[in-house]
Amino acid sequence: MHMYVVEKLGEDWIFLVLLGITMALLSWTMDYASSKSLQVYKWMYSELRGNVALQYLVWIAYPMMLIIFASLFCQMVAPQSVGSGIPEMKTILRGVMLKEYLTVKAFVAKVIGLTAALGSGMPLGKEGPFVHIASICAVMVSKLMSTISGVYQNPYCYTDILTVGCAVGVGCCFGSPLGGVLFSIEVTSAYFAVRNYWRGYFAATFSAFIFRCLSVFNKDAVTITALFRTNFRMDFPFDLQELPAFAIIGISCGFLGAFFVYLNRQVVLLMRRQNTLTSFLTRHRFVYPGVVTFLVASLTFPPGFGQFFAGELMPRESVNSLFDNFTWSKIWNSPVPPGLGKSAAWLHPDVNVFVILLLFFIMKFWMSAVSTTMPIPSGAFIPVFILGATFGRLVGEIMATLFPSGILFDGIVYQILPGGYAVIGAAALTGAVTHTVSTAVICFELTGQISHILPMMVAVILANMVAQGLQPSLYDSIIQVKK
Amino acid sequence: MHMYVVEKLGEDWIFLVLLGITMALLSWTMDYASSKSLQVYKWMYSELRGNVALQYLVWIAYPMMLIIFASLFCQMVAPQSVGSGIPEMKTILRGVMLKEYLTVKAFVAKVIGLTAALGSGMPLGKEGPFVHIASICAVMVSKLMSTISGVYQNPYCYTDILTVGCAVGVGCCFGSPLGGVLFSIEVTSAYFAVRNYWRGYFAATFSAFIFRCLSVFNKDAVTITALFRTNFRMDFPFDLQELPAFAIIGISCGFLGAFFVYLNRQVVLLMRRQNTLTSFLTRHRFVYPGVVTFLVASLTFPPGFGQFFAGELMPRESVNSLFDNFTWSKIWNSPVPPGLGKSAAWLHPDVNVFVILLLFFIMKFWMSAVSTTMPIPSGAFIPVFILGATFGRLVGEIMATLFPSGILFDGIVYQILPGGYAVIGAAALTGAVTHTVSTAVICFELTGQISHILPMMVAVILANMVAQGLQPSLYDSIIQVKK
Repeated sequence: MHMYVVEKLGEDWIFLVLLGITMALLSWTMDYASSKSLQVYKWMYSELRGNVALQYLVWIAYPMMLIIFASLFCQMVAPQSVGSGIPEMKTILRGVMLKEYLTVKAFVAKVIGLTAALGSGMPLGKEGPFVHIASICAVMVSKLMSTISGVYQNPYCYTDILTVGCAVGVGCCFGSPLGGVLFSIEVTSAYFAVRNYWRGYFAATFSAFIFRCLSVFNKDAVTITALFRTNFRMDFPFDLQELPAFAIIGISCGFLGAFFVYLNRQVVLLMRRQNTLTSFLTRHRFVYPGVVTFLVASLTFPPGFGQFFAGELMPRESVNSLFDNFTWSKIWNSPVPPGLGKSAAWLHPDVNVFVILLLFFIMKFWMSAVSTTMPIPSGAFIPVFILGATFGRLVGEIMATLFPSGILFDGIVYQILPGGYAVIGAAALTGAVTHTVSTAVICFELTGQISHILPMMVAVILANMVAQGLQPSLYDSIIQVKK
Repeated sequence: MHMYVVEKLGEDWIFLVLLGITMALLSWTMDYASSKSLQVYKWMYSELRGNVALQYLVWIAYPMMLIIFASLFCQMVAPQSVGSGIPEMKTILRGVMLKEYLTVKAFVAKVIGLTAALGSGMPLGKEGPFVHIASICAVMVSKLMSTISGVYQNPYCYTDILTVGCAVGVGCCFGSPLGGVLFSIEVTSAYFAVRNYWRGYFAATFSAFIFRCLSVFNKDAVTITALFRTNFRMDFPFDLQELPAFAIIGISCGFLGAFFVYLNRQVVLLMRRQNTLTSFLTRHRFVYPGVVTFLVASLTFPPGFGQFFAGELMPRESVNSLFDNFTWSKIWNSPVPPGLGKSAAWLHPDVNVFVILLLFFIMKFWMSAVSTTMPIPSGAFIPVFILGATFGRLVGEIMATLFPSGILFDGIVYQILPGGYAVIGAAALTGAVTHTVSTAVICFELTGQISHILPMMVAVILANMVAQGLQPSLYDSIIQVKK
C-alpha cells in the first residue's frame, strides 16, 4: 500500500513538472513573439517619421491585420477558443461539460490567436486565455502520461487536473505563482481541496521559475526579478494619514469595476440583439473586430488625438510608467529628469498631466470594455489593471499637489508616492472586476515590493464590498450572458 | 430573499469586525505585557553587573518563576489550555468534539499562561496558542451576537466560525493577514470553502491593521511596517548561481524539520512511560517545567556558557539580528561597525562566528524540542523559525567566506547576503516542521520584502518534499501521540 502511494505520488510529481515546463516554455515563447511583433510595429512607425499619412496607415493597418487574422483563424480552427476562458473553466469545474472545449484544435487556435492579439498593442490581456490554454495542456499531459506509462491511471480526478491547470495558467502568465494559485482558486471554485493548493503551488512555482530563468538566459532581464518591478523607498513607504485616500481609491474602484462589468455586458447584449446590423456582422465576422481596432488605433494615433492620453504606450509600457517613482505633477513643465524613460509620454507641453491621466482613463475604459468583446482570444485582467493603475496614479498626483511638501507626522516628513497609489489602484480595480482579493498578492509578485501590503489589502476589500453589492463578477456576467 | 441575504451578510461583517478588533487588542496587549516582562528581566540582570552570583540567580529565577506560575495556573484553571492548540483545532474541525476545549476558562488560562510563558524569554512561540485563543474568541463573539440581536442565528455553521477564528489567530499574531489565512487553511483543513477564505482574509486584514496601528500609536513603531523588517538591496538581491545553495538549505531543512518532529515526539513519549520518575512528575506537575527552565536558563547564562552561543538574545531579538544586513564572518575580529546593535552578541572575540552559529543551532534545537513539551501554553512556530534562520545564516556565512568578493555573472558582481539566506532557512524549516508552504508568505509579510520570493518558494517546496516523506507534521505527530 505504501509503495502504491509513493508510486502514484511519484507520477504526480512528473505530471506537475511536465505541465510546469510546458506552460513556462509556451508563456515565454508567446511573450517573446508578441513583444517582437510590438517592436516591429513601433519600428515601422518610427522609421516613417516625417510622413504622417504613412505613419497613420501603419499605425492602424498593423493591429487591424493582426486582429482580423486572429479572428478569422479562431473562427476557422476552433470557435470555442474565442474570449477569455475563465468563465468556461468555471462552468466546467462546476461539472458542466462544454463540447469540444478542451481539444487540441482549441489549443492551437487559442495560442496563435492570442499571440497575434497581444502583438497588436490593443488593450487586451493574456491571463484569461492562458488559463484555458493551461487547462488543455494539463489534460493533454495527463493523457500523454497514461499512454506512455500505462500505470498513470488518474490518481486524481478530472477536476483535480483542471484546477492545477488553471493555477499554472495564471501563475506563469505573469510569473506570480502564489497569486496565480490563489486567484485560480477564488475564480473557479466554491469548495477547494487543500491537496490541490499544494499541487498548484508546486507546479506554478516550477513554471514561474523556468519562465523567469528563460528571461535571464535570453538577457531580457538581469536576474529573476518581478515583471513590473517597482523601487519605492522602504523606510517610510506611506503614512497612516494617507489611509483615507487609499480607502477612497478602494471604494471608487468598487464602483468603477461594477460599471466596467455593466458596460462590457451591455456591449455584448447589443451585439446579440437581432437586427440588420448584427445579422450582417454575423455573416462577416471580421468586420466587427476590424471596426473596433480601426477606431481604437485611430484614436490612439500619437501625432493625433493620442498625444493627449499617452497613446503611444503599449499595455506593458503603461503599467511600467504608471508605477514609476516620479511625481509627474511636479516635473511637468520643467526640464526632463534623467531616467524618465517611457513616462515622458504622459507629459505634454501644453496639457496638464491631470487632464492626460483623466483622458487616458476615460478613453481606455470604454476601449477595454469594447475590445474584450471582440471574437478573439483575449483577457480583461491587464486592461483593467492598467485602468486601476491610472486611477490610482491620478489620485496620487492629486494628493501630491495637495501636500506638495509631504505629510508631517511625528517629526518625519512622508513624501507622497503617486506610484504607490497606482499599485493600490491596480489591485483594487482588478479585485472589483473579478470579485477576488488575491489580486493584491498578484500585485506584490508583479511589483516585487510588499511595502504597501496593508493599505492595498484594505483597498481591495473595500472595492470588493462595493462591487459585489452592485454587479456579478466579470466572469459570472459572461456566464450569464452566454447561457 | 435578497433583503434576507443582505441582512445576514451585514451581521456577518459585524461578527468579523468584532472578532478582528478583539483579537488585535488581545494580541497587542499580550505582546506589550510580555515585552515589558522581558525588559524587567534584562534590566534586573544588567543592574546586577559585577555580581555574577546574583546575576545568575536572577537569570534563572525569573523565567522559572514565570514558567512554574504558568504551569500551575493552567493546571488549576483549565488543563485543556496546555500546549499548542493547532492539533486540537484540527481535530475539532474534522468533526470530533473535544470536551470543554472552547470554554471561557480555557480562554483565561491560555491568555494568562501564554503571556507569562512569552515573558520568560524561553524558546516558546505565540502562534499555536493564539489559534486556540482566537477560536474560543470567535465562538464567544458569535454567541454574544446571537444573544444581543436575536436575529444572528448562525448563517454559517460552527466550522465556518472556527475556520475564521484560526485565520485571525495566525494573522494578528504576527500581523501577517495573508499568510495567516493560508497557514490556517493548510494546517486545519482538507477541504475548504472559498467563502471562508474571503471571510478570513477580511477579518485577518482588519485585525492585523488594528494591531499595527496600536503599535504606531504606542510609538513602538514609526509606521505600520513589518515585524522583522529587513532591508536587503532590491536591485540584485541574489544570483541564479546561488540557487544550489538555496536548494541545499531547502533539502537540509527538510531533514532537520523531520528530526525536530521526531525528537519532540520522543521527549513526549519518554515522559509518558510508566515508571517511578514519571509518576513522581505527574504528582508534582511543576517539577518538569521547573527543571527544563532551570537547565535552559543555566546554559544560556551570558557570562557562562551562553557567551558562546548568543545566550543573551531573546527570541525576537535573535530573529532581528539573524536577518540583518551585515556579513558577520567579515566583520568578526575587526572594529564594530555602526548600527550593529544586538547582532554584536554573535561576535565573540575568541570564538569563530561559525562555531557560535553552530552551537546556537544545536543547543536551541534540543532546547526548543524539549521546551515545547512543557505543560504550558506554547507554540513551536517561532522557535523553529529561529532555528531555520540560524541554519540559513550559517550557510550564508559559509557562502560569503567561499565567495568573499561576491559572484560575478554577466558583468555584475552579486554580493552574498547572509541575511537573505537566513530568511530562506526560516521559511524552509518552519515549512518542513508544519508541512505547509504558506510559511513563505508569512516570511514575506514578517520581513516586508518579497525580493527572495522564488528561491524561497523553491526551498520551501524541497523542504516539504523531504519532510513529508519522513515524518508527519508536528501537529499530526501531537495528535497521534495524544490519541
